[in-house]
Amino acid sequence: MIRIAVDAMGGDFAPKEQVEGAMLAVRKIPDIQITLYGQNNEIAKYLTSTERITVVDCPFVIPMGEKNPVRAIKEHPDSSMASALSSLRKGDNDVAVSSGATQALITGAHLLVRRMAAFRRTAIAPIIPSLNGKGTILLDCGANLEIKPEHMLQQAYFATVYAKEVLKRPDPVVGLINIGTEEGKGRELEKTVFDLFRSSNLFRFCGNVETKEILNPPCDILISDGYTADIVMKTMEGTAKGMGELLKTELTATFLGKLGALLAKANLRRFKKRMSAEEIGGAVIFGLWAPVIKAQGASKAYGYSNAIRQAADVVRNAVYPKVAKYVQESGVVFGSEE
Amino acid sequence: MIRIAVDAMGGDFAPKEQVEGAMLAVRKIPDIQITLYGQNNEIAKYLTSTERITVVDCPFVIPMGEKNPVRAIKEHPDSSMASALSSLRKGDNDVAVSSGATQALITGAHLLVRRMAAFRRTAIAPIIPSLNGKGTILLDCGANLEIKPEHMLQQAYFATVYAKEVLKRPDPVVGLINIGTEEGKGRELEKTVFDLFRSSNLFRFCGNVETKEILNPPCDILISDGYTADIVMKTMEGTAKGMGELLKTELTATFLGKLGALLAKANLRRFKKRMSAEEIGGAVIFGLWAPVIKAQGASKAYGYSNAIRQAADVVRNAVYPKVAKYVQESGVVFGSEE
Repeated sequence: MIRIAVDAMGGDFAPKEQVEGAMLAVRKIPDIQITLYGQNNEIAKYLTSTERITVVDCPFVIPMGEKNPVRAIKEHPDSSMASALSSLRKGDNDVAVSSGATQALITGAHLLVRRMAAFRRTAIAPIIPSLNGKGTILLDCGANLEIKPEHMLQQAYFATVYAKEVLKRPDPVVGLINIGTEEGKGRELEKTVFDLFRSSNLFRFCGNVETKEILNPPCDILISDGYTADIVMKTMEGTAKGMGELLKTELTATFLGKLGALLAKANLRRFKKRMSAEEIGGAVIFGLWAPVIKAQGASKAYGYSNAIRQAADVVRNAVYPKVAKYVQESGVVFGSEE
Repeated sequence: MIRIAVDAMGGDFAPKEQVEGAMLAVRKIPDIQITLYGQNNEIAKYLTSTERITVVDCPFVIPMGEKNPVRAIKEHPDSSMASALSSLRKGDNDVAVSSGATQALITGAHLLVRRMAAFRRTAIAPIIPSLNGKGTILLDCGANLEIKPEHMLQQAYFATVYAKEVLKRPDPVVGLINIGTEEGKGRELEKTVFDLFRSSNLFRFCGNVETKEILNPPCDILISDGYTADIVMKTMEGTAKGMGELLKTELTATFLGKLGALLAKANLRRFKKRMSAEEIGGAVIFGLWAPVIKAQGASKAYGYSNAIRQAADVVRNAVYPKVAKYVQESGVVFGSEE
């Protein structure tokens, strides 16, 4: 059984969607058992089945808009988020899932789960949709707003192992997000990272990739610093959402449009589904001693159950032990500790 | 008459689309006259009407993938781009339009048109689509990849005047692109710019804006450094293009889908049009002594004619003289020259 810790109180619609998502995941995935961390009385309102689900009562909740994540995590080891994270280090669970405040989760993961010994920086890595239907790993979506080239090398390496082991890509390719494809484009960061990646033999590197190709990139993994990649993800999200609204407005503007939309209902539903973040699950936090999955704050039950499925996949494919082993065998030293 | 210099040779489909775009613009806009700068024999292939259009023969063309823009501009004053730009300083034209290589155009504009005395940095400012149909000014799309806060203050101020005078927004609002809306979010750059903008009374500032709201922002102007804003623009472009393809694929996948799409044809066309860069024209380069419009490299005749229309609007509304006057009257000193 894969043991999954769920922070039931983190998220815009917690604990309802988290509890319902957990029940949905248990029904769909036979080899998981879930521990819900959160306020017993709140969870009880929605928990209609306790098959392979247990609850650990946690009185405190770290709010979504937490301004001081370090203090919040340190002062509230009894919070749902801190308790879920601590359960990994104690050996009670194999993986943790939370849709709580991102910065608090990253801070908590550093303090309570800790980094993998060889890794100097973590990274938040969601899988974004792609036209070929396979998805692209995008990182770092907000863990390190400013970062050194050698830490990006680590992150790209971790993503390569993840792409191989979980996404089953035989020979994953890494692309560097940039404002042009030619060598020498971008800021000092991009120029240095380009040279570093090209001279490394840790993974395949296809060079600079423009975000004009964000849905159709020539690679499996797209990397940038934690500020830029987060902006890219949110721009995609905003454009997709806005275009969906615009399409709806235009289609419902005339009788013929409405009729056409009715006939093409199934097609439009598939279109929506293919661009939906709900299908993808959460973002993996790379570089930790044990896996932590960040689900979207706005997750509904279905999306949350997909984040739980993803958590189970990471454990089932032993991604973290494999990364640790590869790193040891490769003898790579990843920059200095600071 | 508004006198417009057109670099007929810059662009992925030059000079065909540039020449046809110029003829289209002349037919639609009565108070303009155009000078085409480029290779006479190439232009002659497409120029079927010379009403209010003259040609200045320029033997050299700066290629789209120019690696060394400074050298290209300096060594080729006889190129179509350099000649079009130089014509402003000479007083031969009021505004220049080019869809040539961006970095060459920016370099050329600095060397041959020069900055407005009070301004320390230029900015590339396209207008991106918005759900309300009015559009949002986005800057800086690639002129200064790394930039100081006080230079962003200048750019935002220039954009405010442009929004008032050309876009006729009575009281334009500036928003700072960031990874969260709360104060204190982002890198050092965003934190400093936030404080600087909030303490300034040059324009209205609504604080941080997430790119999740890129099509529906609470402001008229969205600003970031030249790297980030360019990434935002290209991510929007890529997402919109990819979603368009995905919609087409899904709608044509079944008979009912095709039938529905046929009925809703006019609606789908309006949808496409509302997200199209072709409708918007080009990006204004802010901060120069005279206006220069950067049209998209991939412009077709229709899109190019819209960039020419925009160039005419900038001159007709006397944006540049007004900015110069406002700056003088406000007595603002915009940081140091370096």
